[in-house]
Amino acid sequence: MSLTCGIDVGGTKIAGAVVAEDGTVLEHRRVVSPAEDPEAIEDAIVGLVADLGSRHALTGVGVGAAGYIDSGRSVVMFAPNIAWRDRALREDLQERTHLPVVVENDANAAAWGEFAFGAGSAFDDLLLVTVGTGVGGGVVVDGELYRGASGVAAEIGHMRVVPDGLPCGCGRHGCLEQYASGRALLRQTREAAATDPGAAVLVAAAGGDAEAITGLAITAAARDGDPFALRCLAGLGRWLGEGIASICAVLDPGVVVIGGGVSEAGDLLLDPTRAAFADQVIGTGYRPLPQIVQATLGNDAGVIGAADLARR
Amino acid sequence: MSLTCGIDVGGTKIAGAVVAEDGTVLEHRRVVSPAEDPEAIEDAIVGLVADLGSRHALTGVGVGAAGYIDSGRSVVMFAPNIAWRDRALREDLQERTHLPVVVENDANAAAWGEFAFGAGSAFDDLLLVTVGTGVGGGVVVDGELYRGASGVAAEIGHMRVVPDGLPCGCGRHGCLEQYASGRALLRQTREAAATDPGAAVLVAAAGGDAEAITGLAITAAARDGDPFALRCLAGLGRWLGEGIASICAVLDPGVVVIGGGVSEAGDLLLDPTRAAFADQVIGTGYRPLPQIVQATLGNDAGVIGAADLARR
Amino acid sequence: MSLTCGIDVGGTKIAGAVVAEDGTVLEHRRVVSPAEDPEAIEDAIVGLVADLGSRHALTGVGVGAAGYIDSGRSVVMFAPNIAWRDRALREDLQERTHLPVVVENDANAAAWGEFAFGAGSAFDDLLLVTVGTGVGGGVVVDGELYRGASGVAAEIGHMRVVPDGLPCGCGRHGCLEQYASGRALLRQTREAAATDPGAAVLVAAAGGDAEAITGLAITAAARDGDPFALRCLAGLGRWLGEGIASICAVLDPGVVVIGGGVSEAGDLLLDPTRAAFADQVIGTGYRPLPQIVQATLGNDAGVIGAADLARR
Amino acid sequence: MSLTCGIDVGGTKIAGAVVAEDGTVLEHRRVVSPAEDPEAIEDAIVGLVADLGSRHALTGVGVGAAGYIDSGRSVVMFAPNIAWRDRALREDLQERTHLPVVVENDANAAAWGEFAFGAGSAFDDLLLVTVGTGVGGGVVVDGELYRGASGVAAEIGHMRVVPDGLPCGCGRHGCLEQYASGRALLRQTREAAATDPGAAVLVAAAGGDAEAITGLAITAAARDGDPFALRCLAGLGRWLGEGIASICAVLDPGVVVIGGGVSEAGDLLLDPTRAAFADQVIGTGYRPLPQIVQATLGNDAGVIGAADLARR
Repeated sequence: MSLTCGIDVGGTKIAGAVVAEDGTVLEHRRVVSPAEDPEAIEDAIVGLVADLGSRHALTGVGVGAAGYIDSGRSVVMFAPNIAWRDRALREDLQERTHLPVVVENDANAAAWGEFAFGAGSAFDDLLLVTVGTGVGGGVVVDGELYRGASGVAAEIGHMRVVPDGLPCGCGRHGCLEQYASGRALLRQTREAAATDPGAAVLVAAAGGDAEAITGLAITAAARDGDPFALRCLAGLGRWLGEGIASICAVLDPGVVVIGGGVSEAGDLLLDPTRAAFADQVIGTGYRPLPQIVQATLGNDAGVIGAADLARR
Repeated sequence: MSLTCGIDVGGTKIAGAVVAEDGTVLEHRRVVSPAEDPEAIEDAIVGLVADLGSRHALTGVGVGAAGYIDSGRSVVMFAPNIAWRDRALREDLQERTHLPVVVENDANAAAWGEFAFGAGSAFDDLLLVTVGTGVGGGVVVDGELYRGASGVAAEIGHMRVVPDGLPCGCGRHGCLEQYASGRALLRQTREAAATDPGAAVLVAAAGGDAEAITGLAITAAARDGDPFALRCLAGLGRWLGEGIASICAVLDPGVVVIGGGVSEAGDLLLDPTRAAFADQVIGTGYRPLPQIVQATLGNDAGVIGAADLARR
Repeated sequence: MSLTCGIDVGGTKIAGAVVAEDGTVLEHRRVVSPAEDPEAIEDAIVGLVADLGSRHALTGVGVGAAGYIDSGRSVVMFAPNIAWRDRALREDLQERTHLPVVVENDANAAAWGEFAFGAGSAFDDLLLVTVGTGVGGGVVVDGELYRGASGVAAEIGHMRVVPDGLPCGCGRHGCLEQYASGRALLRQTREAAATDPGAAVLVAAAGGDAEAITGLAITAAARDGDPFALRCLAGLGRWLGEGIASICAVLDPGVVVIGGGVSEAGDLLLDPTRAAFADQVIGTGYRPLPQIVQATLGNDAGVIGAADLARR
Repeated sequence: MSLTCGIDVGGTKIAGAVVAEDGTVLEHRRVVSPAEDPEAIEDAIVGLVADLGSRHALTGVGVGAAGYIDSGRSVVMFAPNIAWRDRALREDLQERTHLPVVVENDANAAAWGEFAFGAGSAFDDLLLVTVGTGVGGGVVVDGELYRGASGVAAEIGHMRVVPDGLPCGCGRHGCLEQYASGRALLRQTREAAATDPGAAVLVAAAGGDAEAITGLAITAAARDGDPFALRCLAGLGRWLGEGIASICAVLDPGVVVIGGGVSEAGDLLLDPTRAAFADQVIGTGYRPLPQIVQATLGNDAGVIGAADLARR
């Protein structure tokens, strides 16, 4: 049985896993990495592969990283959180690990993980929407990862949903990410908490400071039935479902998988998302509609997907 | 050399053409069709094929029609302008023409035509945006027509671009089609003409009635350098370019081809479209950007594309 | 004690009342009127005044009518629902009734009624917002009705709240009236009912047809605790409260009175209105905020206000 | 002839002037003031009054300051840029200057100046819109300054014009100030300059750095006919005119005066403002429309108005 190594390069840590052909994770490790030092990150990746390779017979390495990866799955053209610019990551890593390497956008890798072994495994066409700090996406079309002409498809967080809307870190205004991400949930909740007496429970849990409310606290309060927290998640779900409806007008996927940290709120988030989606999707009654389901691989989707892509 | 027949079923007329393998149209005919009578339309298609077939050795028929076509390219699930509901068009036509038949969404057929023989022939990945009465779209991914999981992808006219925006014929609000179509151009121009003294030339050309301004008149006046008409086209181009930027955040096509009747305004429409696209697309400077070009096959894109699809 | 006659000219009926100095209605009559015939309406007004005058010693007549009234309270410059154009209504009526007459915009008359004898009687500065078929308004400043420089102030239903928004009967887009009126409530509710399973109770009550849902049915269902109907009223209240916050940034009234037919939903509408207002008004914590209260004179506000204005 | 002293308290400097009954400025002085020290500001005001009073027989003092002033024109409830909170400014200053003092919001004072001696002197009802760093306003109704029920009327910069729009310093989103102020002009221009080749002249004038473009440079380039700069001013004028149309639906002023630093662009700003206003105002053709004119008193409007208010 062939084993490959999946690597997920985040802003502050790097995860590595040994993954079997059926998606099983045999071993998992995580190290801290300094985002500002591109050499150090490559050293850390090489170290992780060497360490895991000392206990497992690896046949390849798949690396997922936030950023624009060229369509040859080789060069990191640009990474928002790491100081990589036109970095020939594949070549560097192959030379140092003596293993075949593929590089992939991290949301693409996660999409592939969910497609191959997770919530999308019964479908040929999948849209993954990751709701974490930002909003990312990955698309599988007819059993193949969809990268677009220049390798940068599925940047769904940067569809414009509000003309003249909130400023986005990308330099434009009104991007979906500003309304439907974990950071947007925090902003919306803290703003509402400043004036809504119903926020008392949540504010008290944050030591009396609305600005100290966390995403975990919102989800926890919602699970306990707190009406204010439920409203905040529902507000996020509305933007998310409406955004997905627009994406589906373009993509027509077989299933929509919601991943990322905020998706752990489960149906508390997904039910309002589904309601807004049903309300806004085109063609209800005249066409099959995709289900909206929760991701099942959690944080491992990226390493599992990257590892599997290394086989292809 | 194999010849196939391409059929384009519109709301009021049906076009048929004999097309060679290199996309050349050998013969072209058009008949009027009563949209409300689905039997009569099929009779007309069969008649067209028989007539063209009497002079050319046809090896297959491709039919493009507005509507939702199933992913087997066989059944018209729903057509907005024709009384077809779950109609097994392929089977019916094969039985009556004794030729292999494929059925395709009309914008998809046009996209394929432009991809195979027109403005997109140098690319592997194409987005066609048709700006006619409404806004339609077709997508080619890695050399294959992209139909989506249920055959209804690329309904780009129904992405929502304005929350709580203008009502759309689809029953929702704020769809791109309400801001970037030929009908939107007419509405915006007529509204502006009611109060803008600069509209005098255009209103005079419409017999003094702003509500009688036509799309052809707007384009003609713009070609003559009329500032008001140029502003109206530029306003349309702004919405179009901003919408395309959102679509490209999802699709990352190699080229964007603008077709449909309004595209005949050429650079008078495309230059403002390009400016708005450049302003709003994600990743400028860090990734290759697609060119926005005018379609080259004009009205024939549909029949040429449908005919070619009949070979595949 | 001086008695005056208040007249309220609606689109389909004319109400007349004999009103005492303390705002008490001594007698009330209503007749049907053909909106398209301006002569017939004046005949009806004169008939009403003559009839009421036969039983009461009237000292003046106040007429409230939808439309633009000149700042001399004399000429109807334009009425949207009646065929009056630059009609010297005051002069005509004075000649025929032999009584002093004043003409006033109907929402202004209602605002004066609520100010003098209703929900605003404890304040010097009042904003009346009438939520009926449309959205109207009236303003009292420092104990005087505020008419504006040309007599057409307080057309608050036509503030733009959504750029590129819903078309309005006034020929523009995105007016508050399209989002916060009784007609908007119907549109929003019917649209939502088409896809929301929670609308079952309301749809059933409308004989199974979502398009047959009425405003009274929404309010009745909300009173019974129906969650869907409550959500619909809350949605309307949100737009209303946000709109009032914008108006209050300009006007800084002492109290906001909500009248018109939809206001009869009471706190079911007003509580979400207050919440949205509190969320969106400028200066919370640094300035006194106006209360938002329900009108107390109901449909009589117009005739009571018009009658009292006839004394001033 | 009675002379009064007008004081205008800005964030970084305090202006004082001796003003005659006809609005003539006899002497004008300006001193620097530390905004963070409320005592020092009062010391500076007292010093200015003493100095001017040593050369002129002053009969009163009018002070204009940004902030919420109570309706008794006496207490500064809140000032955004100065550390005054519920400060009894009138009492303090009267005690120290031995002169009668009135305190007024600075935009109100400027509105009164333009009404009494400037662009609005032929009208009874005026709306002043100040387009400086932010957007402020002042209203005169029937010859009296309109302060609202709690003294904080005419905060027109904080009407919401875009739901879910740009964040505002006031803690809310989509305020007019974020789209129609001098700061908005800078933001819009710099953003556009980053991608628009037409900005070359302006960027070159800013030493090659789009972020270094200034408001003065935009106006200067526009005066020289630079198309990019003209487009930027026109974009600002569009938002401004549309916002004024909404305000006029509520207020119906006799004249709209545009003041503040950006208004010095004159018709380059006002012509597009007028066009957008004409397009968006309610009732065109059925009512008199207010003219939109440039302020005539420039920076002195505040001291002249404050001084005159000290007489009333």
